[in-house]
Amino acid sequence: MSASFVPVPAGSDFPLENLPYAVFSTKTNPTHRLCVAIGEHVLDLKAVAHLFPASLQDALQAPTLNLLMSLGHEAWAAVRAQIQKLLLKGSEVEQNVDLRNAALVAQSEISLHLPAQIGDYTDFYSSIHHATNVGIMFRGADNALMPNWRHLPVGYHGRASSVVVSGTPIRRPLGQTMPEGAEKPVFGACKLLDFELEMAFFIGGPGNKMGEPIKVDDAWQNVFGFTLMNDWSARDIQKWEYVPLGPFTAKNMGTTISPWVVTTAALKPFLLDNFPQEPEVLPYLRQSLPFNFDINLEVSLKPDNDVETLISKSNFKHLYWTPLQQIAHHTITGCNLRPGDLMASGTISGETPDSYGSMLELCWRGSKTVELQGGKTRKFLQDYDEVIIRGHCEKNGLRIGFGSCAGQVLPAITL
Amino acid sequence: MSASFVPVPAGSDFPLENLPYAVFSTKTNPTHRLCVAIGEHVLDLKAVAHLFPASLQDALQAPTLNLLMSLGHEAWAAVRAQIQKLLLKGSEVEQNVDLRNAALVAQSEISLHLPAQIGDYTDFYSSIHHATNVGIMFRGADNALMPNWRHLPVGYHGRASSVVVSGTPIRRPLGQTMPEGAEKPVFGACKLLDFELEMAFFIGGPGNKMGEPIKVDDAWQNVFGFTLMNDWSARDIQKWEYVPLGPFTAKNMGTTISPWVVTTAALKPFLLDNFPQEPEVLPYLRQSLPFNFDINLEVSLKPDNDVETLISKSNFKHLYWTPLQQIAHHTITGCNLRPGDLMASGTISGETPDSYGSMLELCWRGSKTVELQGGKTRKFLQDYDEVIIRGHCEKNGLRIGFGSCAGQVLPAITL
Repeated sequence: MSASFVPVPAGSDFPLENLPYAVFSTKTNPTHRLCVAIGEHVLDLKAVAHLFPASLQDALQAPTLNLLMSLGHEAWAAVRAQIQKLLLKGSEVEQNVDLRNAALVAQSEISLHLPAQIGDYTDFYSSIHHATNVGIMFRGADNALMPNWRHLPVGYHGRASSVVVSGTPIRRPLGQTMPEGAEKPVFGACKLLDFELEMAFFIGGPGNKMGEPIKVDDAWQNVFGFTLMNDWSARDIQKWEYVPLGPFTAKNMGTTISPWVVTTAALKPFLLDNFPQEPEVLPYLRQSLPFNFDINLEVSLKPDNDVETLISKSNFKHLYWTPLQQIAHHTITGCNLRPGDLMASGTISGETPDSYGSMLELCWRGSKTVELQGGKTRKFLQDYDEVIIRGHCEKNGLRIGFGSCAGQVLPAITL
Repeated sequence: MSASFVPVPAGSDFPLENLPYAVFSTKTNPTHRLCVAIGEHVLDLKAVAHLFPASLQDALQAPTLNLLMSLGHEAWAAVRAQIQKLLLKGSEVEQNVDLRNAALVAQSEISLHLPAQIGDYTDFYSSIHHATNVGIMFRGADNALMPNWRHLPVGYHGRASSVVVSGTPIRRPLGQTMPEGAEKPVFGACKLLDFELEMAFFIGGPGNKMGEPIKVDDAWQNVFGFTLMNDWSARDIQKWEYVPLGPFTAKNMGTTISPWVVTTAALKPFLLDNFPQEPEVLPYLRQSLPFNFDINLEVSLKPDNDVETLISKSNFKHLYWTPLQQIAHHTITGCNLRPGDLMASGTISGETPDSYGSMLELCWRGSKTVELQGGKTRKFLQDYDEVIIRGHCEKNGLRIGFGSCAGQVLPAITL
């Protein structure tokens, strides 16, 4: 690809081949509007919408990505091609100084917002290493994976209202717990607050009508793009409340996503074979296309006023179930998906202890400590700890990055 | 109260004291707009919005109830008082023939739609008789109620996209099940399709900020009004999938609510003491206000081209946990609620077998049959069966009704 007229520093997450979407505003213009990242700038899509075909202009001038998501993959390809053209050396954006000044904004000058209005948020449980680790801890090695786990992508409905964008602080939740050996539950601040390293994708396309499942090999048309996610979890609250209907208040205090939505088109060079599945799944989940990606994921923990320590290195490729299988299973009953719906992977742990995606696994339920720089240690998260998730793909000199998904823990309030 | 100029037949669900809200359209005017029911008519609130204070007019001209819900209880009281005034004998609506003709529409002429855009839908599990029945069937009488059940209102996040209004057909879902004695799961149409008799309420008020719990004794300000609900459930799919994260595809094929939202104000004459709770709950759930209601609930089953049979009579008052406790628990972590969010009760069963709120309980997991008129019998639902839920309060000649919540089962599709 020829070079952009916008400088892209070496090691940048945002070359011309990436162009992740986000919703931004500036101090001088608080209107929420769409952009793509390029190097250390963004291209304001509202400011250049007039340079696109008329049928795409409404979507590019909207305050969220939902309308663009709804238009489907052919429109996405057309928008991407035109954005790349506008960012090439010699483009009309480069040559028109007024337009260039209006449309190119330094990332240091912007605030980023939730990229879409999320109708429903679903969280899966698709990492076999994570599910096995949790199973060993709570049920022993012999019954680690539940009988259904290899037959269907286990998932649950999450809380959409409390999905927030990177940088939003998360307050330590209050709630009920049943301490070991106690006779009745106690009330107080969560003692075992955790992060979960996840990725999520946004549903695109017009969506399916209620009653009409999406076939696994058609489902790629419904994947608009990916973000990083931290699914904050209150382990002590979860343990007491989750039987029999699953996690509820243990996870509804907040879920953080990164602001940049990296499209499936940008991830294409990093496609991998799907994770091998044994036993063979039922026909409605048999997928003939590869839809797995080599995405390096990292978690860092930063105590208040201190340096950050890298505490986990994982990869999207460890997921047993693919996004296409997740969509096929979610809709097999006829459940309708809508553009802007968010689907998360569940905690992504690799095979080795340095790749585990939660404090629960890293400290093995409190039986060991996680070492931080400067001699500090952790089992679970402390007040004012910041958790920073980063992700990127890299191959043959091409780097496609996700930016970061960060959030700081605030102390619990007093009722 | 003085009489309305609009006739209200004896036994009507919709006297001047009720005035439930809905969203409607007509063949000649397909715009979705707000109304209240009065007798066999509706009052089009868009057509009379100019007769309200300016601060309320936007909400009354909106296509859903969300904006009115967001305004809070003082605005709701003002709107209700003005609507009652406009419907009294001698009102300006009666006297202005053009306005009357424009604003009063026969219910036989209207289509009803979802009353609000539902941001999140939460389903609780708050009937002690239902939870006990299910517990006995699946775990035996000694462990019927889970240890947490009397300490917190167990609930889970449901699927908002597939909440539909009464009258929408529901397709029998496809999915995975593990038949008794089988070695691996099988795929096919759900064999144990069920209804669940529930009620639901819409969240009103501006909502709470993330991180700020709603106190149990403040939560009445967040209850806009109530509907009937059928939480369709695929029992065989649920049994195989629900461990460990709760119901997912077993309930996401559709959830039906009645179109009329009966306000808390209209229900006030039917307030009851709360259900006695033993042991005493933790302080954040201790409620000093009564917020229980005497609402008669009925379920009828109507096979295709046949008469309906009343198969259950229950009552809202059987709920162990109140809506205010549900709100306090939901938000204790800081989870934010938004106007238009929907909270459901869970299946409402009474103590006696004729008051059970699901086929699972009525046929006691298939061990007995439910008798219908004309000699037909049922265990679970058959294709083309229609389930009709009705509800009303009645006391001293005052009847406040909810209308009906109906849905017909369509056969599963062939993939």
